[in-house]
Amino acid sequence: MMHLALYLEAGTHQGGWRHPDSSSSGTVDWPLYKKIARRAEAAKLDMLFVADKLSIDDNFGGHFSETVKYRAVVRPEPITLLSALAAITDNIGIGGTISSSYAVPYTAARMLANIDHISAGRAAWNLVTSVSDGEARNFGRPSHFSHAERYDRAAEFIDVVQKLWDSWGDDALVLNSDEGVYADPAAFTYIDHKGTHFDVKGPINIPRPPQGHPVLIQAGVSESFIDLAAKNAEVIFVVQPTLERAKQFYKVLKDKAQSYGRDPASIKILPGIVPIVAETQEAALAKDKLLKSLILPEAGLSFMSASMNFDLSQFPQDSLFPDISEQITGSKGRFQFVIKHAVENAMTVAEVGKWYAESLSFFSPVGSPQDVAEQLETWYREGACDGFVILPPYLEAEKDLFLEGVVPCLQAAGVFRQEYSGSSLRENLGLQPPANRYNSAI
Amino acid sequence: MMHLALYLEAGTHQGGWRHPDSSSSGTVDWPLYKKIARRAEAAKLDMLFVADKLSIDDNFGGHFSETVKYRAVVRPEPITLLSALAAITDNIGIGGTISSSYAVPYTAARMLANIDHISAGRAAWNLVTSVSDGEARNFGRPSHFSHAERYDRAAEFIDVVQKLWDSWGDDALVLNSDEGVYADPAAFTYIDHKGTHFDVKGPINIPRPPQGHPVLIQAGVSESFIDLAAKNAEVIFVVQPTLERAKQFYKVLKDKAQSYGRDPASIKILPGIVPIVAETQEAALAKDKLLKSLILPEAGLSFMSASMNFDLSQFPQDSLFPDISEQITGSKGRFQFVIKHAVENAMTVAEVGKWYAESLSFFSPVGSPQDVAEQLETWYREGACDGFVILPPYLEAEKDLFLEGVVPCLQAAGVFRQEYSGSSLRENLGLQPPANRYNSAI
Repeated sequence: MMHLALYLEAGTHQGGWRHPDSSSSGTVDWPLYKKIARRAEAAKLDMLFVADKLSIDDNFGGHFSETVKYRAVVRPEPITLLSALAAITDNIGIGGTISSSYAVPYTAARMLANIDHISAGRAAWNLVTSVSDGEARNFGRPSHFSHAERYDRAAEFIDVVQKLWDSWGDDALVLNSDEGVYADPAAFTYIDHKGTHFDVKGPINIPRPPQGHPVLIQAGVSESFIDLAAKNAEVIFVVQPTLERAKQFYKVLKDKAQSYGRDPASIKILPGIVPIVAETQEAALAKDKLLKSLILPEAGLSFMSASMNFDLSQFPQDSLFPDISEQITGSKGRFQFVIKHAVENAMTVAEVGKWYAESLSFFSPVGSPQDVAEQLETWYREGACDGFVILPPYLEAEKDLFLEGVVPCLQAAGVFRQEYSGSSLRENLGLQPPANRYNSAI
Repeated sequence: MMHLALYLEAGTHQGGWRHPDSSSSGTVDWPLYKKIARRAEAAKLDMLFVADKLSIDDNFGGHFSETVKYRAVVRPEPITLLSALAAITDNIGIGGTISSSYAVPYTAARMLANIDHISAGRAAWNLVTSVSDGEARNFGRPSHFSHAERYDRAAEFIDVVQKLWDSWGDDALVLNSDEGVYADPAAFTYIDHKGTHFDVKGPINIPRPPQGHPVLIQAGVSESFIDLAAKNAEVIFVVQPTLERAKQFYKVLKDKAQSYGRDPASIKILPGIVPIVAETQEAALAKDKLLKSLILPEAGLSFMSASMNFDLSQFPQDSLFPDISEQITGSKGRFQFVIKHAVENAMTVAEVGKWYAESLSFFSPVGSPQDVAEQLETWYREGACDGFVILPPYLEAEKDLFLEGVVPCLQAAGVFRQEYSGSSLRENLGLQPPANRYNSAI
């Protein structure tokens, strides 16, 4: 069965917020998120997903002006949103982004553990390394960490957080009120972590999460990423614009995981998609055309500049997009493809901005619910993925042709669940519970 | 009208978790918190409150053993709990503790702003400075910041967070989908904060909170605290064991606020209380006696050792409690009273441990609902406070003689509201909205 996650956010398709069917109020729209979360749960999706950035992009022209002017720039903070979503849902998983560069491991471990407790085992975290200097400047640094340092720090961050979760044995609580014994000291461990980036004594002050460890998502495509993810990730969120590239990545990642002694089935690879769905193929093509017409080049260029950590405002918009693959210091893996595509197709800077803003280079199937379901089924059956992360072009309050159109087609085709099979996210994803490194006997 | 907040947590009265009427499961008990939150809202309380500590206390004997063995040691993380509570309530305010020593201002500002959006203006934050070395060791420091540095850092933390909230004008969002203009760049500000402790460029990436600034709570009694709170706090949560001391503090604080040019009515002073309520005075005395009998000295001594940042295990439990007021480096203000009380009454170390564990030196009225209501009314009418923070000795799922007994008596006496008067916490507390320091004209 494939696995499906839903991005609870507009802002991927840069024309989406302008579409007449968009229901978002434009600010943090909790009533809308709540409604969509419940509809996603009714559609039996695996997970809601909240992405993040730690600044308003300001690499383009060295200022935030073009970003705030042209883009849906409101960022509901993920951790607090996840917790609110946990409180109003019962079955769907809830995952969000945390930055290993700027989050604090003890705090992150506690917050994720608490969400896992509140949701009774439905929490997931997407650990990212953060890529732009604009983000660094909100956290006391003039520029972001180097590529190598970022990945080294991310690996240590995962290690510390998981050690903290393991610092309580699953049966630590005794709760003997007659004798006045609350917990068993032998079930607790000082983690005494002293690493390159973090120094944390522990133990944590909240019981081990119901899932043992909340599910670890990682997002990326670069070589450093593949190595880190093959060792640690349980879900991989990836940008794959084409079926062929997706199949290749899928094989590389699963082989790498196996070389580290992991069962390939213990990692679920979910490419993001920006589906443009309408009642008919014709209507979907018209919708796609309308959405594209609503994009201004600056929306894409300001987005790209931040993700590349490179100011694209220095190039005239009518000039050919230059090969800057060696100059960018942000998301290297993702932009290898983007830059190559731009150069090979002799696109202008403005054209690249508009093109990138359509889907941020995610795969974007266009069609009727049946058409789109068939494309997804093809990717799944051909070994390109274990499912998808859905990034809707905009949020709709009253009907959603993905949830109520595509999903039933996938169910009818026998590739998506009709009911939740487990009570935790880990169970629904078919992932094993992690052993406790300190307290296996307890 | 008085204001009432409710601690959503057991763990103040150290015998509480052993009481037969305690409903807590012992771990993070979200179904219970949800039930109590809704009952507190039905009773028209101003606010739910979630306290915090950033470690398992381990000053006593240099280890966590006595803490986990004898005390309700589970700490639901406040920010994530507040957000979940925001999602399942409609009127009650929601406040929790954040540490200026170990939280990150950009992240804290975003999280609090998001909770204020999700709750439509009901968020509050209690900024504390953290006092124990055990907490420091979970955040890469061998010991906690000095008293002076802590308060300096706290003042700067408030400044940065409030600047970030002001970095969006209230009318920043244009949302003109026809012309494709999302927001007005002129309404955003780089805060460019470069201080002693923090370096944050801004702007924040979430709209200014509905309340302008979530309500600022501060907790403490020391001179450094009084100075900081008189300048900034909107609600003060304070330990006052007796009416006389409470009246004196109330006057000092309000005078000090006035000396800084603030309206004394713009600060609400709420002493904490541990009410022991039963159907009759006699039953309440019996309940108090039972609760006291359920305390072991180690529960209080391990708690005190962490709050004092001083290891009390070095003294034999049957020796007289020594005057260590010059040696402690934790919560100085609070323990001046505690140590003086212990020394003047020639209490042994064990006796002090048991006594402290009854209420952590908070005022603890004992009696029928009517008796307790009268005591609270006296404090309120005599100018000792603007209301109270209720710290129940344990959490009860099915009946609560404070919410359903004392509160109706206070309403009947005309000192507590029958209905919420405003839609935000700020309005219900009678606090003015803060001006935007950057965007007053917008």
